[in-house]
Parts: sequence; structure tokens; C-alpha cells
Amino acid sequence: MKEALLHMLTENEGQFVSGQQISDKLNCSRTAIWKHISELRNSGYSIEAVQKRGYRLLTSPDLVTPEEVSLYTGEGSFGKKITFKPSVKSTQEIAHQLAREGAAEGTIVLADEQTGGRGRLGRAWQSPSGTGIWMSLIMRPNIPLQKAPQLTLLIAVAVSKAIEKVTGIEAAIKWPNDLLINGKKVSGILTELQAEADSIHSVIVGIGMNVNQERKHFSEEIIDIATSLAIEGNQPYKRAAIIGEVLSEIEKLYHSYLEDGFKVIKLLWEARAFSLGKRITARSISGSITGYAQGITDEGVLLLEDDNGVIHSIYSADIEFPSP
Amino acid sequence: MKEALLHMLTENEGQFVSGQQISDKLNCSRTAIWKHISELRNSGYSIEAVQKRGYRLLTSPDLVTPEEVSLYTGEGSFGKKITFKPSVKSTQEIAHQLAREGAAEGTIVLADEQTGGRGRLGRAWQSPSGTGIWMSLIMRPNIPLQKAPQLTLLIAVAVSKAIEKVTGIEAAIKWPNDLLINGKKVSGILTELQAEADSIHSVIVGIGMNVNQERKHFSEEIIDIATSLAIEGNQPYKRAAIIGEVLSEIEKLYHSYLEDGFKVIKLLWEARAFSLGKRITARSISGSITGYAQGITDEGVLLLEDDNGVIHSIYSADIEFPSP
Repeated sequence: MKEALLHMLTENEGQFVSGQQISDKLNCSRTAIWKHISELRNSGYSIEAVQKRGYRLLTSPDLVTPEEVSLYTGEGSFGKKITFKPSVKSTQEIAHQLAREGAAEGTIVLADEQTGGRGRLGRAWQSPSGTGIWMSLIMRPNIPLQKAPQLTLLIAVAVSKAIEKVTGIEAAIKWPNDLLINGKKVSGILTELQAEADSIHSVIVGIGMNVNQERKHFSEEIIDIATSLAIEGNQPYKRAAIIGEVLSEIEKLYHSYLEDGFKVIKLLWEARAFSLGKRITARSISGSITGYAQGITDEGVLLLEDDNGVIHSIYSADIEFPSP
Repeated sequence: MKEALLHMLTENEGQFVSGQQISDKLNCSRTAIWKHISELRNSGYSIEAVQKRGYRLLTSPDLVTPEEVSLYTGEGSFGKKITFKPSVKSTQEIAHQLAREGAAEGTIVLADEQTGGRGRLGRAWQSPSGTGIWMSLIMRPNIPLQKAPQLTLLIAVAVSKAIEKVTGIEAAIKWPNDLLINGKKVSGILTELQAEADSIHSVIVGIGMNVNQERKHFSEEIIDIATSLAIEGNQPYKRAAIIGEVLSEIEKLYHSYLEDGFKVIKLLWEARAFSLGKRITARSISGSITGYAQGITDEGVLLLEDDNGVIHSIYSADIEFPSP
């Protein structure tokens, strides 16, 4: 009901909607409307109320609540089911639990703040309140396990496209799962699986994105390697709008992927890849290899040609760019 | 303490061990010994007690309790940590939880009975009390996700070898995860993962094995396709002994695999494969293909040559043998 009311006000943004119209469309009493208007105002929506004219939405806050996000999720099925928590340890944990309980593909978990946000390989991810997108998406692709790494690449392309669409800024992909603007990390993707050896039960995609942080928000440790959309674009952005765009891009690419395979995704990925053709060092538990990044295979494996011309298949590593 | 007492009695099976010896070695009172002897007797161990001579183990029951299983786990690290429950829904569920909590590689979960035992693709697995092995093993291999299906094949080889060692009966492997004796299923392997797209957190291997069921134990539905070691070998077997052998074979092959890769495992698998060279039908959600099973790839994918000479890569399917 609150969501439907917000939709009506938003569709008519800047114009008055009468209490009668609302009451007719949503089939509720004037008192109920007033109660929800108050709640929306308490959440930060600025709504003008004028006798005999009705209600008018003036400005909306930068929220990632289901009612705000649902304004931007469009026609697709991704993001139709939203679990929102003001503060959580990690949206991934909640999404894993929902997936085990059978949650549908496209279900998302959003939080305003994560107290124990995780990146790849169990690393910490700073997720302060009200500044970024901390989201987990449940997918249930009918693909073999061997192809799961392709999804990370697909998501990276989708997030990069969404950023470009909303902000006009190009975000390059650093294999396998980072998005960089001007060489600094703006977003990270964590793809986790619940699977059998020959079938995937669910893929839990975690997307962390720095949106409205200012430089002062970043800790000493990461200030030189992290950035936000607001820093790069020199203006704040609506997180809900970006979430809507991200989900829509993921869903589009995902359908193309399920129908036509990895080829198109691979081309899109390579066009946005930061490291291809560059001299890089791939560092992993088993050692490090320096060479030229040649491309990715159809299974999402990075190919690296070392100084002896030997091509190495990199399944998992951290990529570094040696200083020249 | 009970475990140590059982070890002493078992090492000296058929001979008396004096109360003094036990009390010295285990550093406990005569009363404590008596209490544990009573407990062991209640569990089904037949222990003779003769004044001035001590205690003598006559026979032991077919149990899968930690104290009984630990008699057979030998030198390796697999099975050193055992969680045992008389009755559970599924040992996989418990093992998944333990893995999330950080349980070490080699930890096993055993149950005497499963009320909701699962096979591949969410199928039910009959796991009645006291008759079979219902076990989950936690592994933490440092291998890429793409190679996880190799582990299913490794486990199948290990279980087949263990069965042969204990019973002398050959169990053939039906791709990907069934063990057959005389064409009937005696054991199934379920390999589940907790993983990121580029690193495996844990592999939870479920092993179900029909050991001492008689024909009357099987339901109508499966009586023509299932069998047990007791039916095939015409005698009962000690489940704990088989568990010990299975764990020891898995651990041996696993170390060989981590050091030397999949080649040896592949050869062993092919030598035991039931379906290779045969005309089979691979049935999956996306349809079914009939042809000759040519072999497996280095990634555990089954290669099937259809009647037009086209070779198909089968990632996940049910294999059927068309009647001639």
C-alpha cells in the first residue's frame, strides 16, 4: 500500500494527486493515506499537502528500501522480490539462507549498511551506511558447474554498462571481478554457489558498489585504491536508480547468455577489460606469474603469456600491474 | 575414555585385559571402568568379566559410532573428527553446517538412519536404520571450480576399491556417481560444493551405501534396481570396517590427485566404468541422446558419440541402457 502510494506520487512527480484519486485507486480510507504519507515523510520524502488539491511529491531521499527500489525495477523479474534490512552482517549470508529455503531466481537482498561485508576469498569489504549499494542476487541458471565463472564475467559487464548508463562514466573490468574508474576500484562482484558436482542449485551474486562516498569516507588503507561514483562524477547519484539499471542489465545479458551462450558476453567483456594486452602479474597461493594478458577462454579462464612464450591458464589469482 | 577402553579390548580381542592394566593405562578408577563396560554392553558389545582375570571382548555389534569407527580409521586424517547421530534428516545438511562453521578437511558425519536422505538432483535415498552407511565427508581441495566434478569420479573409484577390498566383490561405476554390483545400485555418491566462482570453500561428499539390507528391506519401487553388499556377498559386513576402508582409499587417491593430477584417477575410473564402450542413453532436462560412451574428458565430462558420428559432451544426465 505504501509502495503503491509512492508509485502514484512518483508517476505524477511535481503535480498534485488528490486524496480522492488515491483513495479510489488504492481502495483505502483518507486516514490510511494520511498515515502512509506521514511514514514516507519520516523516511525522508518531501511531500506537500494542500487542501482541496491533494499531495505532491517534491523530492525523494536516497534510499534502497523496497518501495523506492521498486520505482526503478521495470518490467523484468529480477528485483521483484526484495528483502531489505537497514543493517546486516552480510547480504550474502541472508541470500544464501533464502536460496536454501527455495527463494526464486531474481530475489534480491539489500542493506543500507553491512557490518561484515565480504569480498572475494573472504576479504573484508567496507560497506558504511547510506553510501553504497550492498546487494545480493539469487540466480538459478541451468548451466554446468564448469561454466559458473562465466557468470562473474557476465555480471561485471552488466554492472559496467549500468554505471555507464546512469553516470556516463566508463568503468573498466579488472579480471575477474573488479570494476575500476581511473584505475581505482568502484565496485566488486562476489559470485558464490550452492551446487552439486554436476548441477548448480543457486548462484548468489554479491555486488558492492561505492556510490556516494566522499574521499573522507574511505579508510587510510584503501583511500589510494578505492573511489566512488560521486567522487568520479562529481555529483551524488540515486542508489535505487542504479540498482534498477544493474538488475535490468543483468537480466538482459543473462537471457542472451542462456539463449546464445558465452560468445557475446565474452566480446563485451573483452571490450571493457582493463588488463587485456597489458603486462600483469597474477598472484595466487601457488606462486605468481608475470606476462601479457592474452584474453579469456570460453570458460572464463584468463590466459597469460609469460616471457618464454608459455601460455598459462589462470583460474584464480589477484592481478597486479607491475610499475614500468 | 570409552573409546580408549574399546581400543584396548579390541587390540586384545579374545584375551583378558585386567582391571589393573586398564586402570593404569587410562588413568581411571575401577568404578569408571565398570561404568564404561556397562555402557559398551548396553550398546551391544559382548564383554565377559571374570574375577582376577579381567575383561574380554567376545563380539562387537555392527555400529557406526565414533568409538567403533575409530577402530578402523588407521593413520590418515580423514575420519579423525566424527560427528555421529543415531537419526538425522540428512548427514549432508549437518556437514554443510559444520563446513560453514569452519570444520577441518576430513571431518565426517555419520548417522545410523536418515529420515530424509538425498541423492543426486534432490532425489530421495532410502536410508533405514542400522543397515547401511550414510556418511558425509568434508573436503577442502585447493582446485579450481571447473575441476570439482573430477572429485566425484575420484570418490567413485575409492569407494569401488574399498568395497572390493572388504568383500572381494567388484563394483562397477556408472557415470557419474553410482556403484553397481551385477547391474544393481549398491552405492551412490553426492558431491556438493560451497564455492566462489574461482575458489572452492568446501566439498561435501555424501556417500550412501547399502550394506546389510536384505531384499525385504527395499521398497517395491527400487527392489529391481537396488542391492546390498550382504545380498551380493551372502553374508553381513561390518559397516565400521567398510567406512575405515572407504576413508583410507579416498585419502590415498586424493593425495595422489593433488600431487599428480587427474590422469591416474581417470585411468582407474575408466578401468572400473560400467558404461564405457556401451550403447547408452543420456537423459537430461534438455533432451536425450543415444550413442556409444567413448570416455571421459580431463574435466570429468562424459563423451557420447551418436549415430551420426557427432560427439556430445555430457555434463549432467541420467544414463540408461536401452534394451537391445
